[in-house]
Amino acid sequence: MTPLDRDPPDRSRSPIIRRLLDDPRVAQARLGRRIGRLPYFTRVESATGPITHMEGREILNFGSNNYLGLANDPRVISAAQEATARWGAGVTGSRLLNGNLALHEELEEALRRFYGRTGAMVFPTGYAANLGLMSSLLGRHDRAYVDDEMHASVLDGIALARAHMKRFGHNDPEDLRAQAAGDTHAGICVVEGVYSMRGDRAPLRNFLDVCRSTKLALVVDEAHGLGTAGERGLGTVEDEGIVQDADFITITFSKSLGSCGGAIIADAEQIEALRINTRPFLFTAANTPASVAAALASLRILQAEPHLVRELKARVQSLRDALARHGIQPIPSDGPIVSVEVGADFDTLQAWRLLWNRGIYTNPVISPAVPPGRGLLRMSVMRTHEEQMVRTIADACADVFTDLQLSQEGRGKVAS
Amino acid sequence: MTPLDRDPPDRSRSPIIRRLLDDPRVAQARLGRRIGRLPYFTRVESATGPITHMEGREILNFGSNNYLGLANDPRVISAAQEATARWGAGVTGSRLLNGNLALHEELEEALRRFYGRTGAMVFPTGYAANLGLMSSLLGRHDRAYVDDEMHASVLDGIALARAHMKRFGHNDPEDLRAQAAGDTHAGICVVEGVYSMRGDRAPLRNFLDVCRSTKLALVVDEAHGLGTAGERGLGTVEDEGIVQDADFITITFSKSLGSCGGAIIADAEQIEALRINTRPFLFTAANTPASVAAALASLRILQAEPHLVRELKARVQSLRDALARHGIQPIPSDGPIVSVEVGADFDTLQAWRLLWNRGIYTNPVISPAVPPGRGLLRMSVMRTHEEQMVRTIADACADVFTDLQLSQEGRGKVAS
Repeated sequence: MTPLDRDPPDRSRSPIIRRLLDDPRVAQARLGRRIGRLPYFTRVESATGPITHMEGREILNFGSNNYLGLANDPRVISAAQEATARWGAGVTGSRLLNGNLALHEELEEALRRFYGRTGAMVFPTGYAANLGLMSSLLGRHDRAYVDDEMHASVLDGIALARAHMKRFGHNDPEDLRAQAAGDTHAGICVVEGVYSMRGDRAPLRNFLDVCRSTKLALVVDEAHGLGTAGERGLGTVEDEGIVQDADFITITFSKSLGSCGGAIIADAEQIEALRINTRPFLFTAANTPASVAAALASLRILQAEPHLVRELKARVQSLRDALARHGIQPIPSDGPIVSVEVGADFDTLQAWRLLWNRGIYTNPVISPAVPPGRGLLRMSVMRTHEEQMVRTIADACADVFTDLQLSQEGRGKVAS
Repeated sequence: MTPLDRDPPDRSRSPIIRRLLDDPRVAQARLGRRIGRLPYFTRVESATGPITHMEGREILNFGSNNYLGLANDPRVISAAQEATARWGAGVTGSRLLNGNLALHEELEEALRRFYGRTGAMVFPTGYAANLGLMSSLLGRHDRAYVDDEMHASVLDGIALARAHMKRFGHNDPEDLRAQAAGDTHAGICVVEGVYSMRGDRAPLRNFLDVCRSTKLALVVDEAHGLGTAGERGLGTVEDEGIVQDADFITITFSKSLGSCGGAIIADAEQIEALRINTRPFLFTAANTPASVAAALASLRILQAEPHLVRELKARVQSLRDALARHGIQPIPSDGPIVSVEVGADFDTLQAWRLLWNRGIYTNPVISPAVPPGRGLLRMSVMRTHEEQMVRTIADACADVFTDLQLSQEGRGKVAS
């Protein structure tokens, strides 16, 4: 009898498995799928561009992080293909033992030069870069001060370190100062250059001032800032003039650079230390040659063509102008994420659904990702969106919000 | 003044950064590099094959996990290239929000069918698959029983869950039974099909028996078992007839499948629950199209050509026979990792270095990865190694061990 001839065993003997299956979120998700499609795990059936094939239809895509359009740039695709031919489909091991390609080192060199810093260290994902940095820097007696809207990868890294986490109000350096002033523990402060859900930017100089006076090390996550902020696209650290001052900058390759991976940018000394004590770096397989080459090609395009960042910003301004003509006021920012506060979770999902029915993809953000009653409709702009597309989504938003307000007396929520 | 015109600020104000730089491992590594090259972060300058260009030389490579040679298979490379052309260099987001390609679902379907199970879930790395499974299954009042030689990714996942970890003796189901017998907490047991450092296999049926009687859920990590054990290459779970019985099987794409990524294989119900409560799955960018397509192509080759596994095993047997002719007895196993106990850390590094000087790459394993005095020289066999290469490394090992024994009176350590 082969193993495949038998029925699966009864797994309910295991309390761990019973609890997994009893998670109320499982029943919720099942119910959600039954009453209509959920806005999550949407099946994507083509490359990610302004028009993307999803769930059997051509969709106007305002829900992608392919901000500069580089994931589909022929030069980036060629670079990935050539690297696969030369280096293989994978490196089959960690940087530590057998997967440290000259190509990985070349990308690290290019990144550190781009930021004008002395060290950089590449990870297979942006999640791993944040997880690694937090878990390596922090011990369990340390304090990690994080913005209230911090990304999960940072929170997980702090949990892995078993450090004590303290949240401060979103984009509120004075709240950080008040909390950290009397704290004698060693610590760090983590902020994002551009926040992934609300799309707004951190007042980095003010945070730097607080960190200097409280001796906190400053970590800036530029996942959404790289390629979208700063004249050269370094991120909000460039606009605020703190590229050198930030102790650690983390980035991802899976947004503006159109690949997958992440990195820590810092001084050479710190990077040297991180290389030998960061478990999520030491004990993981290294990035594939294709993903490294794609990130490198995108970085070189960005360096050679800083106008890409300006073009993206112009497109963002078009969307904001078009929304404003309809009286819709998104959360202020000049970044590629244009988020509108809709209100209740149900209204937010309804707005998403009505746009989807019109062939437009966005991302709804509901509790617990935001406080209840402050659900967001999140649109992300790509440089490759055409003006007509921007008008289409703005008009559709106006119609949908009007419909929802009429039926639910929710008027006024939109522009709050 | 641009941010790049200034000198870097003094970072020693931060206690966190001072501690990072004061880590004694940093000074050790610096010293090691000064007295001669360390066996870590070796620069690889070509694709990973039996002969690999490393640090400026052609090296006979017995330190790669490209067990079946599929990382360089033309069909796998073509699949990665075509996927990049069709789907782009990256998906620029998470499966949850905007990166759930039909291609990811196709790979999940192929994996679950390969294992004859009803569910599978793909992650960007094998590290993330283990981190995700542990952190999702376990709560802080749970017990995680792990083999004493468990991989860091599992340990990190347990730490992230803040669960209580208990280690049992390596490959010792009776030690597990003794520890778990009176334990009333919910818990899991994690073992590896083939251990990454010693290369030996777990007695899975015995572990299953203990798990059944103690109500522990059984997790088997087949990172090194996939493609190297079982008639069809499913791993040690296949040889032991517990493919259905293991509650969760985790795999990586970065060894036999020649790509990068990982997966959990389980029942559909469990996978459905994991999809919505696993943070390292929800909050990470999805695998690149190239890496998914490469893993899928390799999987199909493995399914169509199970003789690849037999060919690998034959090559492993050749190496063991050749070593035996020199009186060298590696740790017993029929897997691709052939590890010899050398002894003290210094001797182990010396052995590694002498082989390197002869143009042969292996991996030394020293404390704390193994107990002090039990350092390993780890050779990993690829199906694509030629018989002559196997003889070359066996002869070189004999010479090197003899030299070390003569100079250090270490005779007898080798075959212990």
